[in-house]
Amino acid sequence: MKYGIALFPSKKIQDFANSYRKRYDSHYALIPPHLTLKSAFEASDDQIKTIVKELRKIAANTEPIPLKITKFSSFYPVNNVIYLKVEPNETLNKLHKQFYSGVFADEKPEYAFVPHITIGQSLSDAEYADVYGRLKMQNVYFEETVDRFHLLYQLENGSWTVYETFRVGKEQE
Amino acid sequence: MKYGIALFPSKKIQDFANSYRKRYDSHYALIPPHLTLKSAFEASDDQIKTIVKELRKIAANTEPIPLKITKFSSFYPVNNVIYLKVEPNETLNKLHKQFYSGVFADEKPEYAFVPHITIGQSLSDAEYADVYGRLKMQNVYFEETVDRFHLLYQLENGSWTVYETFRVGKEQE
Repeated sequence: MKYGIALFPSKKIQDFANSYRKRYDSHYALIPPHLTLKSAFEASDDQIKTIVKELRKIAANTEPIPLKITKFSSFYPVNNVIYLKVEPNETLNKLHKQFYSGVFADEKPEYAFVPHITIGQSLSDAEYADVYGRLKMQNVYFEETVDRFHLLYQLENGSWTVYETFRVGKEQE
Repeated sequence: MKYGIALFPSKKIQDFANSYRKRYDSHYALIPPHLTLKSAFEASDDQIKTIVKELRKIAANTEPIPLKITKFSSFYPVNNVIYLKVEPNETLNKLHKQFYSGVFADEKPEYAFVPHITIGQSLSDAEYADVYGRLKMQNVYFEETVDRFHLLYQLENGSWTVYETFRVGKEQE
């Protein structure tokens, strides 16, 4: 089965992202707005058991995750993806690194880790230029802390279902 | 914010359900195929903290959940919903009951609890009759055990994001 690891920002940010995704993101209906921590990877039922245990350990040793969104940005000319830029920080970088080492050492990241929340993709060049031209002049600022990440799996139609939530940090009762 | 409690069947059943939902379910893009354990309810940030603690307790005292799907059925004439019928059992009934008592005692269930996985809704009468007429003659059989349920919240566009997973039963490491 195909799995991925992502975090969901607050409802406020998800609603904001969806207001653009609705028009510009071909994956709008497949998954809520998210920040990918580890892109799609294959794992067997046995492997995923080991992975889940490892994710619990990683979560227990992770601080709450700061999320600071400062602008619209894009991966052009690599591709026409438009995204909300999330400022890199130690916590995010460490998480990402852990998701590509240890039990995950088989897979190498395809790209350098640029934390982001996609709001547009699969746009034609003309549409991309038009949309990004307008968005990059817009101000955007969100700051919050996220206390969990999720392991998801992909269905045959391309959509993602959450398999398990991992709350970071010590148990806060 | 609006929350709900649901369980997701295995990928196999979700893929099967989606093959129908794609054509017949107006909520296809809003949430993966699921069995609703508690329908949408409002809760504040404070209330949800209490609720999450309660859900952990309930999960710890719940056995793995048997899921047996035996046929297509429908809520007609109440509405035009077509669903995969999940055989009622003690575990499901007890969960449902707990989700409408204790900290949840404010909300009464709108309908009697009929465990089901919706595969069609918002169909015209003619379309309903045509689709259901064909489906009710089809054989369907799935049997499995589900070891978790999910608390979800709804975004402004009507879609649902998973807030937290609750694994049932004792820790199985």
